[in-house]
Amino acid sequence: MNLNEKLQKYNDWVFRMSAYRMALAVIGIDKLTVAPEAGSDYRDKRTAFLSGELFSIETDPEMLKLIEELLEDENLDSETRRAAELYRKMIHDTVCIPKDEYVEAMELMNSSYNAWLEAKMKNDYSIFEPYLKKVIAVKKKQYEYRGSDMPLYDQMLDDYEPGMNREKYDAFFGALKERLVPLIRRVTEAEQVEDSFLYLNYPVSDQKAFTDTLLAYLHFDPSWGYQNETEHPFTNGTCSNDMRTTTKYLENNVISAILSTVHEVGHATYQHDVDPRYDGTILADGISSGMHESQSRLFENYLAKTKAFWECNYPALQKQFPQQLGSVSLDQFVDAVNVAKPSLVRTEADELTYPMHILIRYEIEKGLFEGTISTEGLDKTWDDMYEKYLGVRAEKASAGILQDVHWSDGSFGYFPTYALGSAFAAQFVRKMRSEIDVDEALRTGHFEICVNWLKEHIHHYGCLLEADEIMKKATGEEFNVNYYLDYLEDKYTKLYHLD
Amino acid sequence: MNLNEKLQKYNDWVFRMSAYRMALAVIGIDKLTVAPEAGSDYRDKRTAFLSGELFSIETDPEMLKLIEELLEDENLDSETRRAAELYRKMIHDTVCIPKDEYVEAMELMNSSYNAWLEAKMKNDYSIFEPYLKKVIAVKKKQYEYRGSDMPLYDQMLDDYEPGMNREKYDAFFGALKERLVPLIRRVTEAEQVEDSFLYLNYPVSDQKAFTDTLLAYLHFDPSWGYQNETEHPFTNGTCSNDMRTTTKYLENNVISAILSTVHEVGHATYQHDVDPRYDGTILADGISSGMHESQSRLFENYLAKTKAFWECNYPALQKQFPQQLGSVSLDQFVDAVNVAKPSLVRTEADELTYPMHILIRYEIEKGLFEGTISTEGLDKTWDDMYEKYLGVRAEKASAGILQDVHWSDGSFGYFPTYALGSAFAAQFVRKMRSEIDVDEALRTGHFEICVNWLKEHIHHYGCLLEADEIMKKATGEEFNVNYYLDYLEDKYTKLYHLD
Repeated sequence: MNLNEKLQKYNDWVFRMSAYRMALAVIGIDKLTVAPEAGSDYRDKRTAFLSGELFSIETDPEMLKLIEELLEDENLDSETRRAAELYRKMIHDTVCIPKDEYVEAMELMNSSYNAWLEAKMKNDYSIFEPYLKKVIAVKKKQYEYRGSDMPLYDQMLDDYEPGMNREKYDAFFGALKERLVPLIRRVTEAEQVEDSFLYLNYPVSDQKAFTDTLLAYLHFDPSWGYQNETEHPFTNGTCSNDMRTTTKYLENNVISAILSTVHEVGHATYQHDVDPRYDGTILADGISSGMHESQSRLFENYLAKTKAFWECNYPALQKQFPQQLGSVSLDQFVDAVNVAKPSLVRTEADELTYPMHILIRYEIEKGLFEGTISTEGLDKTWDDMYEKYLGVRAEKASAGILQDVHWSDGSFGYFPTYALGSAFAAQFVRKMRSEIDVDEALRTGHFEICVNWLKEHIHHYGCLLEADEIMKKATGEEFNVNYYLDYLEDKYTKLYHLD
Repeated sequence: MNLNEKLQKYNDWVFRMSAYRMALAVIGIDKLTVAPEAGSDYRDKRTAFLSGELFSIETDPEMLKLIEELLEDENLDSETRRAAELYRKMIHDTVCIPKDEYVEAMELMNSSYNAWLEAKMKNDYSIFEPYLKKVIAVKKKQYEYRGSDMPLYDQMLDDYEPGMNREKYDAFFGALKERLVPLIRRVTEAEQVEDSFLYLNYPVSDQKAFTDTLLAYLHFDPSWGYQNETEHPFTNGTCSNDMRTTTKYLENNVISAILSTVHEVGHATYQHDVDPRYDGTILADGISSGMHESQSRLFENYLAKTKAFWECNYPALQKQFPQQLGSVSLDQFVDAVNVAKPSLVRTEADELTYPMHILIRYEIEKGLFEGTISTEGLDKTWDDMYEKYLGVRAEKASAGILQDVHWSDGSFGYFPTYALGSAFAAQFVRKMRSEIDVDEALRTGHFEICVNWLKEHIHHYGCLLEADEIMKKATGEEFNVNYYLDYLEDKYTKLYHLD
């Protein structure tokens, strides 16, 4: 085969995978949004079969050989080379696990998820603990098959955020601990900001009417994006021109659905902006969990919590809720949106205390894999750490160790990227603000000016470049956590008059 | 292989097909309800690939051989035998067409559909005519490959309604013509029934609130059914416990969405009630187009247009629309819902004139395949027949020959089942009313009593029995068109005081 023939075979393989991925994405979105519960078992069995078909295509040893050959060909264009390298890693990391162990692990994750659900409902960590222990053992075994000389937890961290490891995360979280713990204490002790008006009765149908306005403002265009509702908001899609997001409305909270809408639209916009030539290939996604989260948090925290954003949008919100917000000034509203208060549940945490929730999870994960922390008594370890870092203690496990789903399916190494994303965003925003007038764009209803900057400097690459390369190209320097900490200190010092 | 081994192989084949069908159903529902338009091309290409994968499994020659062997084994249970016979016909009717011609035909149907859309938008039949001609030629060729000695159009009729042919349809439509044409004339000349209050302004959000009540009344349970909105209402699903319907709301019409909701729930209930052991097999569907339509029309016309139905539901509707319906009595409302008026568009036609729309299409299809009617000038032929049978003439082709999609993709032989379904329903309802107190059930909010009768006598069989067998078992006699005509004559003689 000459290069062209090889490429044709390769592209056909990529296309076949993309067809199954499209189907699985649509089935997954349907399941989470509208599919009737009683049909789950029927659909899930068939979804598992189709996943198996995809797995067989993905791990085709003949394709691994073909990819090796392609990579040896010096005439291979750089984009295909990059994609082929990523596919090679994907195949290698999967095929090294014996298939029966792979299937067994999938089943364990399923029953572990069910145990977690039951444990959370019954507020009983002891139901989940034996599963958590098994999941950790299985994950260890799976990573050992890779035969890498990198320590296991470092490999996990690297999977979600290529290039990251414990050393770098230790430095990152160390800096956070050093500057945020005292800042949070000062905020907690300061005079509190009034925000009770955010939690009056806000009829959901009226909230939805405002969301329509908001989606238009964000340029989340119905031609390529669709928003639905779910208990746990998410973003998924089939290609750059087909992104789906969800949000969740709370009757007694006007800001929750707004921020979750903006957050998910941040994820969706990132993927929508990826070069459409990459559609259907491994390049068509955000490059890492941290980068993805940086874009959703950038939208949510760095844009949608600014005064400029609300200068444009608050009049419409007030008009929608004249009784609840008619006498609340713009400044009062923006201050309330930015309130910081230590709390127990990560997904409800504010911008300032959020990274501490992640720090706790990172320290526990590290301890679990280094052997210094055990799954036994982990609920108490968890509560002690919340007390230490945030000064709060859960009264029930559902608001403590059982609050998050992530460990039940073995997603270790994922949490840290949540905090990293916020820090990435700070550095991006600082650069963006030096090049365009962000506030003017937000104030005058030109959100697309911000999106265009992000597209040009971050989004359009997809997975062509690594996160650190994008950071360097976009901001002219390496990632520096101090931009994030400076931003938080500055913002909360002003809001709580800490000077 | 012994019988058990053969059955295992056969069941595995059935399961694999069902997985692809599940995926294609979900992708199709998603496409018609929420999928963003700009992603169509990406999804459609991959959907076509997955359809091809299904086609390859379906037409596996090894499976045809296995099925033949199974059918020769006298120990095969009767349900599997029936399914295997249906699969054998499915495979035979498909594999007899050379694959390149099959693919070419699919492409022609696609471009023909696009031409129809354009023609309808531009009100120009000449854009669609050449495609229609080609589609007819291709359909003829495809049926010739089957090598059956049945005339072509009879084969098409038999495909949608096994056992039906021109002779039987001629008798059926002949009876309709004889008794309905004069009845429609008398209704048209009689004093008209007031129904203008149905067409006031009815805000869609209020209509939706009533639909929620209605779906609960119909026992369309969210655990197994989900309703969405589309331009053209439809029903589809993945298994008995996962049915999806859609409806369409019109701001100036309170009854349209109600009747389309009930109609689609009729289809959905039929499939939901099929024995769940048949899930994933060829037995898990309505047995024929006519039987499917009989259930949707039974719900829509024979139940939801009765006084008893509205005795239970009208108070809630009035409460939802006090200004529009507050002074309209129950009797006035029920009379209005049953108004008959000759009109141009099939999908908007009333119960009485509806079958004449179908009669016209049947006569045209028959003429097209017998060679007595040409696609050239067919728009005029169409208009002349509407003038003859209904006394109305379309001013534009979009309300005339271009109104329906069916011919653009070669669905010839399908239309007649629409009228047949209404007639089947009349005979079923007559029997049901002799066995249970339908009005009492409807009046007291026990719709499930009707559903249970239909499930026991019709639905649960799925495709285990042919339509005529079900008719005979359920009503004790062969299908008899006179029950339908008696019903219509009786109903409209009373409503329009024709005595």
